[in-house]
Amino acid sequence: MADTQNTPEKHDKLSTEPYKGVRDFYPEDMAIQKRIFSIWRDTAEKYGYEEYSASVLEPSALYRAKSGEELVNEQTYNFTDRGEREVTLRPEMTPTVARMIAARRRDIMMPARWYSIPNLFRYEQPQRGRLREHWQLNVDIFGVTSLNAEIEIINIAYDIMIAYGLKNTDFEIRLNNRKLVNHINKDVFALDQDAAHKLSKILDKKAKINEETFVSSVKEIFAERSEDAKKFLALINSNNIEEFISHLPQCSANHESVREVREVMAGLERLGITNVSFAQTLMRGLDYYTGIVFEIFDLNPENRRSVFGGGRYDDLLSIFGNEKLPAVGFGAGDVIARDLLETYSGLNDTKNTSADVAICPINENNTPYALDIAEKLRDSGVRTVIDFSNKKIGDKIANANRRNIARVICIGDEEVANGKLTIKVLSSGEETITNESDLLSHFKE
Amino acid sequence: MADTQNTPEKHDKLSTEPYKGVRDFYPEDMAIQKRIFSIWRDTAEKYGYEEYSASVLEPSALYRAKSGEELVNEQTYNFTDRGEREVTLRPEMTPTVARMIAARRRDIMMPARWYSIPNLFRYEQPQRGRLREHWQLNVDIFGVTSLNAEIEIINIAYDIMIAYGLKNTDFEIRLNNRKLVNHINKDVFALDQDAAHKLSKILDKKAKINEETFVSSVKEIFAERSEDAKKFLALINSNNIEEFISHLPQCSANHESVREVREVMAGLERLGITNVSFAQTLMRGLDYYTGIVFEIFDLNPENRRSVFGGGRYDDLLSIFGNEKLPAVGFGAGDVIARDLLETYSGLNDTKNTSADVAICPINENNTPYALDIAEKLRDSGVRTVIDFSNKKIGDKIANANRRNIARVICIGDEEVANGKLTIKVLSSGEETITNESDLLSHFKE
Repeated sequence: MADTQNTPEKHDKLSTEPYKGVRDFYPEDMAIQKRIFSIWRDTAEKYGYEEYSASVLEPSALYRAKSGEELVNEQTYNFTDRGEREVTLRPEMTPTVARMIAARRRDIMMPARWYSIPNLFRYEQPQRGRLREHWQLNVDIFGVTSLNAEIEIINIAYDIMIAYGLKNTDFEIRLNNRKLVNHINKDVFALDQDAAHKLSKILDKKAKINEETFVSSVKEIFAERSEDAKKFLALINSNNIEEFISHLPQCSANHESVREVREVMAGLERLGITNVSFAQTLMRGLDYYTGIVFEIFDLNPENRRSVFGGGRYDDLLSIFGNEKLPAVGFGAGDVIARDLLETYSGLNDTKNTSADVAICPINENNTPYALDIAEKLRDSGVRTVIDFSNKKIGDKIANANRRNIARVICIGDEEVANGKLTIKVLSSGEETITNESDLLSHFKE
Repeated sequence: MADTQNTPEKHDKLSTEPYKGVRDFYPEDMAIQKRIFSIWRDTAEKYGYEEYSASVLEPSALYRAKSGEELVNEQTYNFTDRGEREVTLRPEMTPTVARMIAARRRDIMMPARWYSIPNLFRYEQPQRGRLREHWQLNVDIFGVTSLNAEIEIINIAYDIMIAYGLKNTDFEIRLNNRKLVNHINKDVFALDQDAAHKLSKILDKKAKINEETFVSSVKEIFAERSEDAKKFLALINSNNIEEFISHLPQCSANHESVREVREVMAGLERLGITNVSFAQTLMRGLDYYTGIVFEIFDLNPENRRSVFGGGRYDDLLSIFGNEKLPAVGFGAGDVIARDLLETYSGLNDTKNTSADVAICPINENNTPYALDIAEKLRDSGVRTVIDFSNKKIGDKIANANRRNIARVICIGDEEVANGKLTIKVLSSGEETITNESDLLSHFKE
């Protein structure tokens, strides 16, 4: 150890760990990630949504505008570049898509149906399911004022859950309406803005705090109006929308916000989506929602949790000085997707097969012919790998098998001489002899 | 203007510009990006390469180890996180893949054929084709000592150029060997390490400086050995490998490094790849190359340029304290790919069609039936969009046409009543009437 000082290079072995809280995707992990992305892409595209993308770097001002200073300072990656620009690694995609739409407001045909699969960064202690970087499907429809937008967006979210392998009894779609929350706070209980805001924050946290804390927080906000606090708690404890409405004044039962919730539920039911419930405590954190909000809730008794969600945000373009634009969207993350796939579909389906066939030259001098055969197969789209090693032919075949490659073609002097090729199926041991000219016909299925 | 101070929120409209030097990908841009990525994926996978990925954030130490301090400090995005970790937005992918391979050296089956499509960051003044962020295909084979690795990697690079739409007369593959450069510097001219390094740097810059500066720089390095300088310049000015060798001492003509160049050229020729030339000045910048280096050179007379390249780097794992591992790879960028596609294939092929069919309800009350039809089509993988607007039916059809949607199905009261649907092909105006039960058969092609 005495010479450490003199030859630091030799002793300072570089760590092979990735940066804290982010993941390496080895081919076997990437195969799962690609399976998730392809569920997302296929589902969104089935509904005519178009993919867009943007850089992970955004001007920090974009997040100050609507998310509040707290999010920018405490939970995001910010730095100042050499041109004194404040830069943020995007923590969510919605401000970016709003910026992009606002920039070309007049050129973009409405309605615009857009989706993206960005990576997002959050600066926080890494923990299970909450990494510093994750990927998130974002699906948004712009320019539709009617509730058809909500119904379509929730339909897509539903289809994704089904594609993960869940049955409709495995999860629940929970609905609320920001307008209803506002109506109750302002019109029914005449709370001022500050009290209403506090109440919303407590509702947002309800699932994470105990009942007693929740009740005493509510009572504190209502202060001496204990009768109103009781009424409010009755609303919160209602088991469905009918019971909820029974606690409201007559005129509120027909309020626009209630009608919207009913209409979305009816629309989904018409599509055969019946695992929907009214959730009067659902807030979905972010400040920019203006109407219907929803979340997908995993009913797995061992892991009841909100899986993902979204809602309507009609005002977001105003931060760019644009006129309002109706917008409904949701985001779904990759970490929970992997978890759900594992629980409900199994990840073994995602077998990592790098090639359809392995070509194994028996000797080095058979390699040129092996390359010819490989080229022919590749030109027809057959994924073909060549074993260039000096291993014995038996080991080459065993290696192909370990790599889950289904078929092998061994090339020896005889094959080079007469052009007769043997295709061996590794699972069954079955062998088929073919001419070079008929080779492709064996790979057509 | 007097009230600016008091109501800054109203006047400070947020900019809709992206961060400097990065790009927004609107759906029409993303369609081209996806076309490039799918050329890359399809080509790499045809050769049995598996996709991997990693975070854009890496510990800064990873780049200090081999690239030299200069690159880390001047040209990369670095910042210090709140845990005092130095973080870099990756400027290239090779250190990352070396880190990943080193971390699981014993578990990864060799040879490993891996590819990735990372976004990379460089801190520099944005200019045409040199943005701060770009995407790059990285293709690498690990664990193959023989030149079969170089031949396969160059074959993949060649196939990608062909897939961009170039003919083999449109571009050239240029080859050199770092071992040959070292042999000439050390064995032929007996230059010390410092002089050899300087000479390599000048060679690397040759294309960017004028002939006079180049010659005088070479003469300066050789100093009083003017005869050697002359010999060296004769080597540099040789037009092909035979002429080059004629300027070398007899024993050098059979040097391993020359043999390697000849063998790669012969191997490629056997595969029908004949647009290959020996390029004695080719260095490919990065320090980690140890053997064959190559580049793809665009011969377009209006835009002669290096398009992309790579080479062998057998020592990179040693920075992690691992034993050496043979590795050959290349990187190809998205900006030049788009440029080449535009020049040689045209970008109009990349038509942005968000859906296969548009369903247009004539009245709002036809929407539920329209949704049923849409669901049926989507379940069979037909990309189906519904027009929820209140526009007249003629405008709905015109909108579908503007969006390049090929077919339209209009749903009015009559269609709801009798289930007879008319599929209209917008390009020809041709109409087909079908029953709901036969609907899918019209979308099978």
